[in-house]
Amino acid sequence: MFSPAVILSHPQIGENIGAAARAMKNFGLSELRLVAPQCRWPNDRAEALAAGAGDILADAKIFPDMAAALADIRLVLATTARDRDVLREILTPETAASRLREAAAQGITSAILFGGERAGLDNDELSLADAVITIPTAGFSSLNLGQAVLLLGYEWLKSADRTPDVRTRRTIAVPATRQELVDLFTHLERELDAGGFFFPAAKKETMVRNIRAMILRSQLSDQEARTIRGMIVALVKNKYRGQKKKEEE
Amino acid sequence: MFSPAVILSHPQIGENIGAAARAMKNFGLSELRLVAPQCRWPNDRAEALAAGAGDILADAKIFPDMAAALADIRLVLATTARDRDVLREILTPETAASRLREAAAQGITSAILFGGERAGLDNDELSLADAVITIPTAGFSSLNLGQAVLLLGYEWLKSADRTPDVRTRRTIAVPATRQELVDLFTHLERELDAGGFFFPAAKKETMVRNIRAMILRSQLSDQEARTIRGMIVALVKNKYRGQKKKEEE
Repeated sequence: MFSPAVILSHPQIGENIGAAARAMKNFGLSELRLVAPQCRWPNDRAEALAAGAGDILADAKIFPDMAAALADIRLVLATTARDRDVLREILTPETAASRLREAAAQGITSAILFGGERAGLDNDELSLADAVITIPTAGFSSLNLGQAVLLLGYEWLKSADRTPDVRTRRTIAVPATRQELVDLFTHLERELDAGGFFFPAAKKETMVRNIRAMILRSQLSDQEARTIRGMIVALVKNKYRGQKKKEEE
Repeated sequence: MFSPAVILSHPQIGENIGAAARAMKNFGLSELRLVAPQCRWPNDRAEALAAGAGDILADAKIFPDMAAALADIRLVLATTARDRDVLREILTPETAASRLREAAAQGITSAILFGGERAGLDNDELSLADAVITIPTAGFSSLNLGQAVLLLGYEWLKSADRTPDVRTRRTIAVPATRQELVDLFTHLERELDAGGFFFPAAKKETMVRNIRAMILRSQLSDQEARTIRGMIVALVKNKYRGQKKKEEE
């Protein structure tokens, strides 16, 4: 596995390192490198915020400077919020993730760089990166370190995620068969007819078509189709009893 | 503007409400609704974490239950991490964002629901939603409230964001003209030739082609092309002085 390393430069706040580790673990990243952390290390607050991702903190490697942290890395992408005046590619997180995924597939080591809380990455650190990543925001831009790691991790997972855009849970239910739906339509329309619903008669065909479309749109399961038939039975119940009584009289 | 409202049900921790507001502001969401907050309200810790998004907290509306909070909303999407046994559409955050964007374009009010820290949304609350959103994770799934709001906000912004996938900053530099590059090639190749670099002579054409490809790949600006020519001049400087001296002798 050649997942990108997450490299935090001069992180100052233990909580943010912990949040970064937790974000990484959610999205399948495991290698954390810290360049000259400005807080105690190991760090209690980092461990508290890491929740179940303590293993990532425990395995984190410490380096004195960015060049040392990047020594074995071949593709380096650096996050930055500020405008820089160097002619360099600026990638969206999504495009960055697909480049990192491509590198991983080719067995090429890669890393994503994140600057410290106060000043971000300095120009020397940026000069070691192949390209820059900027997270799109709506004017107001105030993402903290943990949030930036979260969004890049999310795009990393998404770049390989095959979850369908829309799923429907089918564990306990399968969609109703056409027969079950036709039985439901027939049942419902018969009872509606008996109740004088289709008036005027000339409009019955259109009314039936609209009701069927409405029911189909809700993509009933077999169980739900049966439930609705039970509801119809319940709704008409007293009515027929009354009628039968009258007939019996 | 019909941006989706963010509705937090029974939030327990002020910090998370603040982080949610900050995440919202980064991505252009402004309407926050709280259902029966379990912490003091207004809340100091929420305000501290909101950073520059205090206005969103100040405008947040409080409701006694979810039905009240949703009274005027027409499209309701609920986030949930846990499997539910109800037959219902499950959307990725990206697909959810595009549905919300579509609703906004049609002037349809919408909301994204987030459950409390401990138990998430309960089944009654979920029963009011049109569909469910699940954030894809890598097995380990432990996103907090602020992180979930951040990711949905990010997808909301992305669904309308027109940032090109790859940009190159051109504020201070334009790409070199072909003439500037040809001058650079000519200059470099002349000096390499003088230094006996093209050996054996039969391979010169291939070598030149490879060097030119390498230079083109770096997409030089006009200034950078000039800089490289200056570097070549500097590199050969002493050499010619020595040669001239010899010629003068």
